[in-house]
Amino acid sequence: MIKIKPQNPKGVRDYLPAENRRREYILSIIRQQFELFGFQAIYTPSFERLDTLQGKYGEEGDKLLFKILNSGEYITDSAKKNIQQDSITYSELTKEISSKGLRYDLTVPLARMVSQHQNELQFPFKRYHIAPVWRADRPQKGRYQEFFQCDADIVGTKGLIADIDLIDLIDTVFHKLNLKVEIKINNRKIYNGICEYLEIINQSSKVSTILDKWDKIGEDMVQEELTKIIPEDKSKALLAILKDNSLEKIQSLNDLSAKGVEEVEQIMRLTQSECLRLDLRLLRGLDYYTGTVLECVSTETKFGSILGGGRYDNLTEIFGMKDISGIGISFGLDRIYDLMEELHRFPESIASSKILVVNLIESAVEHYFSLLRTLRSHNHIVDLYPSIAKMDKQLSYADKAGYSYAIIIGEDEIAKDTLQIKNLKARTQHTMKNTSELIAFFQSENEK
Amino acid sequence: MIKIKPQNPKGVRDYLPAENRRREYILSIIRQQFELFGFQAIYTPSFERLDTLQGKYGEEGDKLLFKILNSGEYITDSAKKNIQQDSITYSELTKEISSKGLRYDLTVPLARMVSQHQNELQFPFKRYHIAPVWRADRPQKGRYQEFFQCDADIVGTKGLIADIDLIDLIDTVFHKLNLKVEIKINNRKIYNGICEYLEIINQSSKVSTILDKWDKIGEDMVQEELTKIIPEDKSKALLAILKDNSLEKIQSLNDLSAKGVEEVEQIMRLTQSECLRLDLRLLRGLDYYTGTVLECVSTETKFGSILGGGRYDNLTEIFGMKDISGIGISFGLDRIYDLMEELHRFPESIASSKILVVNLIESAVEHYFSLLRTLRSHNHIVDLYPSIAKMDKQLSYADKAGYSYAIIIGEDEIAKDTLQIKNLKARTQHTMKNTSELIAFFQSENEK
Repeated sequence: MIKIKPQNPKGVRDYLPAENRRREYILSIIRQQFELFGFQAIYTPSFERLDTLQGKYGEEGDKLLFKILNSGEYITDSAKKNIQQDSITYSELTKEISSKGLRYDLTVPLARMVSQHQNELQFPFKRYHIAPVWRADRPQKGRYQEFFQCDADIVGTKGLIADIDLIDLIDTVFHKLNLKVEIKINNRKIYNGICEYLEIINQSSKVSTILDKWDKIGEDMVQEELTKIIPEDKSKALLAILKDNSLEKIQSLNDLSAKGVEEVEQIMRLTQSECLRLDLRLLRGLDYYTGTVLECVSTETKFGSILGGGRYDNLTEIFGMKDISGIGISFGLDRIYDLMEELHRFPESIASSKILVVNLIESAVEHYFSLLRTLRSHNHIVDLYPSIAKMDKQLSYADKAGYSYAIIIGEDEIAKDTLQIKNLKARTQHTMKNTSELIAFFQSENEK
Repeated sequence: MIKIKPQNPKGVRDYLPAENRRREYILSIIRQQFELFGFQAIYTPSFERLDTLQGKYGEEGDKLLFKILNSGEYITDSAKKNIQQDSITYSELTKEISSKGLRYDLTVPLARMVSQHQNELQFPFKRYHIAPVWRADRPQKGRYQEFFQCDADIVGTKGLIADIDLIDLIDTVFHKLNLKVEIKINNRKIYNGICEYLEIINQSSKVSTILDKWDKIGEDMVQEELTKIIPEDKSKALLAILKDNSLEKIQSLNDLSAKGVEEVEQIMRLTQSECLRLDLRLLRGLDYYTGTVLECVSTETKFGSILGGGRYDNLTEIFGMKDISGIGISFGLDRIYDLMEELHRFPESIASSKILVVNLIESAVEHYFSLLRTLRSHNHIVDLYPSIAKMDKQLSYADKAGYSYAIIIGEDEIAKDTLQIKNLKARTQHTMKNTSELIAFFQSENEK
């Protein structure tokens, strides 16, 4: 038999039970708040048609899409011929052999889904979606090729109330997770206004990609890269405005920036969040943002972004549905997990109390099973050790596998029609007369 | 701007909010029972290395794997040369340009994960995993390319107690879902024993693939296909034994079948399930089953399989971990969903009660937000309509979007410092003096 090394692919990871419980702890808090804020869960498939995905995330994003190979005899004769003649580019060949890709985020699938099902939905439409997304990034610490996004979007309203509601939501979730954060806010109208004022609006998308790297590569490098695509005086002026980080000066540049300033000011006035901070450098590379842009970072440790989001006015237009404005945020589950690990913010015990029925006598199996059924019907998590084994071995297993109690029914107990309950943490043991007494015991333990 | 038709890929589907709530209803019941039966949730990535997946699901299965195109310049020079010389097969080329695939089920990833992390786990290991899997099947009614499996496995024990426990679990889940089912049981040792007896053991895998199609293509076609790979007298003898469906006659064939019969009889004796039925024709194509095989079908309508499972003794061997026996079952979420739809088994209302705060006065926004925050902190699902609009429009939206209550605070209410609460279902309306009265009102409504 050929042996294969058991290994998950690079850039993705497993969560074993203890880790997964912590992951579920974060998810349960996010999900609960999404529900309380009136968002409704939806589901869309993991892959989309490539034409749905391509061209939405900039040039870089297109490269990072995971493409799925067509089934069957996927190389057409014409493609084969072109390869043979060496007259085909990668992107042309990819089109020939792949027509689906794994989703890159949950926003474009939302736009596709809203456009496709528009007659079945009520607008404004508040949806949440918690699901994995995939990006073929180079694997590195804290950056995964598969990661969970927890998205809440309000689609079909221009009202800033949606922006404020989402900031409230962010504030509540991180408060419940016991994480201190800064919510950075900016507005694409401000940025576009500045670009118009500096007459670099045609380069604004490329410029924003460079500006997004500011924290990573530093101001000097940003300046250097910018001067490759816009004149040096303009790049200097741009950096000066952004560093100044003042709404007052920008207001008077032009109508567009004035509108952006007005929006930011109204949001800041009405939100109760004490974490909100203006950051004119915040752009977030995605081309589809048109208003508010949001990002969250920890104020307790240098960690990078754990949430992103923003307002988009034209996302469904490409799918033939005009004038639908929306705003959405996306919690990065895996990054929040890593942050909580680093800061030791997971509650000590998030595991439920588990009971192991020790399996000692073959002829008692029916008795054991009947006990299992009764306890489970009373909502107790309970297991029967799946084979007869020495008591010591079973108790040691129960200990290591995190059980709180063991129930022992051996020859003695059978004869006397009793049972032993052992508290594995406290190392105490009691005799119970019957199952009713046992259930009463667990009830009193739960109420402690 | 190029317009794109908003369309999900063929063979996969969206769940809109109302559908998704029903889907979540099924999931919540399965998840709750998995927990009560002592299974722990894990997470593994959606894609695996191709060498982990290939060769585990038979020839047909390999073809149905979704393969992911490598990133970057994925055609090596040698592959290009081979295409140019027309001297490369599809499977060779695929190896050159793809090294990852979407998982086909949750069992092989479990085996990979258990082998990789064996030193971090306690055995017997009871895990559950609820996640999508992908198969490049031809899209057709009731068969999806992406579907959710809900798997519970007990790994690291040969004890039949595990088999019985899982049958109890199946019984409980379908009972809670209000579905009447038959749990078909068979044992691969019986089948292999019969094949040994008939001296067709070398063809047993191919034969089982044909037998699996019995219900679909009928006995005559099965007979016809079988005689292509085994002598006619043997295929007739095989069909006769399977149709007879009697344990008694098989017991004496040889040791292997006798062992299989003993296992089935012990399970049938100890389970409390009244749905269990022997079916010697049940094989389930997967090559890795070695003992108990299980499958569930509805007894209320002709629908096909909604659950499958079985015992495997050698699944981790290929990953270098010998003598690990396990047994697992897999609930097919999407098929159960379709079945429940067909039988109208979803409870009438599984939506939580939602409240809409009607948005009437610009200057009252702070007041509205403060009300939202208070109600949410009392665990009420509440929304503020995201822009000022006519009362009629907002109430009509609330109706259509499924809200139970609307809270109205207009000029009058502001002046008198009161609020109106409107029950949208009962069409009644009350004046409340303040938020405390409102909260007391909701509490009394909940207790009704």
